[in-house]
Parts: sequence; structure tokens; C-alpha cells
Amino acid sequence: MTEPSLKIVAVAGTGVIGRGWIQVFSRAGCKTRVYDPDINMANAALNWVEKDLKLDEADGFIKTDEIKSRLALISVHTDLEEALDGAEYIQENGPEQLEIKQSIFTQIDQISNPSAIIASSASGLDINLIAAGLQGVSRCILAHPFNPPHVIPAVEVLPTVKTSPEVIERATVFLKSVGQMPLLMNFHVDGFLGNRIQAAVVREAIHLVERGVAGVEAVDAVISQGLGLRWALFGNFGVNNTNADGGIREYYKKFGSAYKESMNDLDSTAPSFDPEMIDRIAAGVEAMEDGTSVAELSRWRDRLIRKIRRLKKDDPHP
Amino acid sequence: MTEPSLKIVAVAGTGVIGRGWIQVFSRAGCKTRVYDPDINMANAALNWVEKDLKLDEADGFIKTDEIKSRLALISVHTDLEEALDGAEYIQENGPEQLEIKQSIFTQIDQISNPSAIIASSASGLDINLIAAGLQGVSRCILAHPFNPPHVIPAVEVLPTVKTSPEVIERATVFLKSVGQMPLLMNFHVDGFLGNRIQAAVVREAIHLVERGVAGVEAVDAVISQGLGLRWALFGNFGVNNTNADGGIREYYKKFGSAYKESMNDLDSTAPSFDPEMIDRIAAGVEAMEDGTSVAELSRWRDRLIRKIRRLKKDDPHP
Repeated sequence: MTEPSLKIVAVAGTGVIGRGWIQVFSRAGCKTRVYDPDINMANAALNWVEKDLKLDEADGFIKTDEIKSRLALISVHTDLEEALDGAEYIQENGPEQLEIKQSIFTQIDQISNPSAIIASSASGLDINLIAAGLQGVSRCILAHPFNPPHVIPAVEVLPTVKTSPEVIERATVFLKSVGQMPLLMNFHVDGFLGNRIQAAVVREAIHLVERGVAGVEAVDAVISQGLGLRWALFGNFGVNNTNADGGIREYYKKFGSAYKESMNDLDSTAPSFDPEMIDRIAAGVEAMEDGTSVAELSRWRDRLIRKIRRLKKDDPHP
Repeated sequence: MTEPSLKIVAVAGTGVIGRGWIQVFSRAGCKTRVYDPDINMANAALNWVEKDLKLDEADGFIKTDEIKSRLALISVHTDLEEALDGAEYIQENGPEQLEIKQSIFTQIDQISNPSAIIASSASGLDINLIAAGLQGVSRCILAHPFNPPHVIPAVEVLPTVKTSPEVIERATVFLKSVGQMPLLMNFHVDGFLGNRIQAAVVREAIHLVERGVAGVEAVDAVISQGLGLRWALFGNFGVNNTNADGGIREYYKKFGSAYKESMNDLDSTAPSFDPEMIDRIAAGVEAMEDGTSVAELSRWRDRLIRKIRRLKKDDPHP
């Protein structure tokens, strides 16, 4: 990894996403100031980081002395002013409620170094609303990661309409320098890019099970043993391009009308997500996972994704 | 790989899917009788197999003497009766038109060993219509693979309503024994499982680009550098299950209403697939792939997917 383009960062909020960002920034060598008004939350996040690094060590991803130097970069603060002191990039990970995010952004804008970038991990809210009316609106962006941020590189980036181009450039360079892949959006839409695509998949997968076409396990395997093996390498368009010898033009020309038919046959009503539906699907998932804990499954996911990324690094997209 | 449970198979039709099946069956050690009424098509498929095996050799997936013994298992026939002689499993890969498939199935049913399984690679047609009225309807199934069949294990299996349970069992055991993963469906729906899920992704990806939310490259990267890394390991439900510490119940309870909102915001009209739309998207893909040929991209895909599958074999789902 290259040197991080900014050296001191603050992570505000220490839930599942916040603790992932701590890993991203400290791994890259940034001084990482962790802020949470609740010291127990902050300490729990730090404990999680330590545990995760020990698992990394067991899997051969990191050496013992690297853990020490990594942890030495992280400091915990319950005082926001102290946390933001000197920070050049601030990643906000508060609860997904507009008023709360606005209040955090207002405080950060008032206290922080005026040239610092203020980025929100918001997963649905419009950054234009979060940063509305702030004196420092020109330095605000959305930087929405995927779970877990230290394992999955994609980060959806949306500037406000008032964000300065220089800030967008500086944020993009920084995110790349810490090993993430910023993906620029042009305007706000509900669910951004990834969660819209995921919503389309969640909806159809639930419909297939609820209609009785196939069970949870078969519907899952069609992805994990089928479509998903291609999607780890190419996105939708890249896959479409390699599904005909003549590329995407031939593919769409040949299969466009079949796709239209299938698309029109999809049930576009949202599943209910009522307790009964959740129970039916969850029972199927629990049968499929056969007692394996979420923690164990997640750990396997993180380990394997890192190995897949290494494969792609060693033998990159031609 | 285990021994194949059936030793002599026939592959009828030698397009992109047929040639992939030749690889699947011969790799497993089956005597593979290739039928195509057009000798040029059959020879082209055989040439492709030879070339592909040489690329496999260069990538270290196969040794020179294995290529010889593999090719020795394959014979080419322009006479159907000759091709089917002794075949215990017949994989049909003709053009995706009901009358043509019905005609091929009728011939195969009349000529083949009465206990042989007749499987269709149809990607959209209902196997109940393809096999309707045949004397041997009880031995007919759909076995729809993903491209390329010798790289992607998932195979969607649908018996006709008259298929005997013994045939379903024998076909399932056979497909597993040649390294594929049969996924049983309960009844016919347009697009089966995989192409429905893929259609949902294609639709939303095209809408995102056509609306101007982001470019082809960003929409693709949200999958290849984001969602797809998880989907190479888990299907939709497995991913949902690992997106909250408390598993899928907590995840759906917490995010069900956000998902419903996103789902209701998705545009459920099918893209036009008219020449202008195809041209806009294709131009974006061609810019993204920057002159790399479809053959080169496909070869990279096949190599990397095999490596990903090896990772999963060496460190399997816990």
C-alpha cells in the first residue's frame, strides 16, 4: 500500500461501520482518533479491533509486531474537540437519522480544522440535507462503505451540490491511498448504487422462495456457485460483455427481448418483511447454515474475500 | 473428483454451451460422444476444446499427457444414432426454439437407450413443453448451466411433472459426480432462478447509467469491488445473514422498511434494448475495457474463477 495522502484522521461513531473504518485508516498508517461520547462503545470497538487483528495474525495476514504498531496509531476520545485536533479527514458514523447526523455535522464543522474533509458513512440519507446550511458545506461529502469497510474496497462518494471540486479530488485521492475504491455518483438517489442493486436481488430472491419455485439453499447457491463467481470479477456490464463471443453488443441484441420478457415477469411488489415472512426465510437460512454462528461465517467471509482480492492483485483484470 | 456415476454420455449441439459440457464430461472421465449434424460446427467445438486445454496447460491446471487422455475420450458424430449408441446421459444444446427442441427430443427419445436420461440445456423454454407427449417423458429433465459450464458449477434442474423420481435422483447424482452443483426447482418460471436474479440486476444497472446517477465503470465497480466479493461466497440470504451481528432476523427487522422503500423506488419498466440504448451502454463498456478483447477477458474470468473455487475448496464454508 502507498503512504496515506492525509496523516491524521478522526472516526466519529464506533458501531459496526465505524470500527471497520478504524481498521482501514490505521492499517494505512494514519493516526486514527476515535470519538464516541460513550466510552463503553469506544472501548468495545477498540477491543473488537484488537480481537480482529489477532484473528488476522492467526490467518497470516499480519505479524505480531505490526499489531502493536497498528494499535499505537489509535487513540480513543470522548471529547470531540480533542478527537478532531489536527484531523485532516473526519469520517462520521452516527445513527442513520437526519437530525442526529445534522447535529453531529454542525458540531464537527464548528470545531474542526476548516480545511478538514467531513465525510458521512450515511447509508440512505442525502448528504445535501445532512450538510445543509453549514458554513463548511463545501468540505462535506458522502463516503458510504460496504460491510465490512476494511475488507470490501468499494466506497460510494457523493459531493453536495456545494462541495468544492478540490475537496472531491482530495477525498478521492485519500480514499485510494488507504486502499479503498471511491465510486463517484452524480446525484442522490434512494439506496445509492449498491443498495439499489442489492434491493433488486433481495426482492427477487425472497419472491422465488415465497412463491415456492425453490428453497433458500438453491436460490442462494445459484449466486454463490453461479452468478456470484462472475460478479467477484466483473460488474453487471463486464459480465454481459463476456457472455457472447461478440461482446455486449451481440449479447444485448441476441438476448435483449428475452431479458425484457423476464423483467416484465418479475414481481415488483416489495416483500412484506412482516414477522411471519422474516421467520419463514430465517428458518430456511438457519437450516442452511446448520448452527454455524454469524461470527464464524463473517470471519470466513473476511478471510476469503482478502484471499480473492489477493488473487485479483496477483493476476489483475487484463 | 470422484468417478462419474455414468460412463458414456452424448452432447447434442456444439455451440458455446455444448462445448462447455464437452469439457465437463470429458474432464470427469466420461466417454463423450459429440453430435452435430454440421461437421464444421462439431470440428470447431473440438478445436475450441483443444485450444482451451492448451491454455489450461499454460496456466498449470492440466498436464500435457492429461490433455491427450482427455481428448481420447471425445468422439465426433454427424449421425445421431451412432452418437447415442450406449449413451446413459444425453445433454441437448440445440437452438432455443420450442419446435426445434421438440424435434430433437423426439428423435433422441426414439433412438436412444430407453433408460438413458435426456437433459436439455434450454435457457428459457419449459421442459414440460419440450418433452410433451414423448413416450420417454419420464426420463426427461431440464439441466440449465451457467456460462461457461466447465467453470461455473451451478446447474438449474427441473423435472417434467411426469419425470420419474428415480431419474431425478440418477441425474442429480451424475451431475454431482462430474463436479457440477444441481439446484432443484419445483416448477417452471420464466428465467428460472439465475436469469431472474440477473435480469433484476441488469435492469437496475442499466437504469442507473441511463438516468445519469453514475457511469458504467462506477456501477460495475460497485459489484466487482463490492457486492460481488460477498456473492462469490454466499448467496443473497447468506449475505443478509452476515450483515448484522444478530443474523438475518436482526438484519431484516432493522432494514426491512429501508429495503421496502428502495424496492418501491426502483424503476420496474424494462430498458428498451433499442439500438441507441445498446450503443450508449456498449460505448461505456468499450471505454472501460479499453481495447481488451472479449476472448482475453473471458480467459481471465475462467482462470480466476477456477482459483476462487480452489480457495473455497481449501478453506470451505464453515
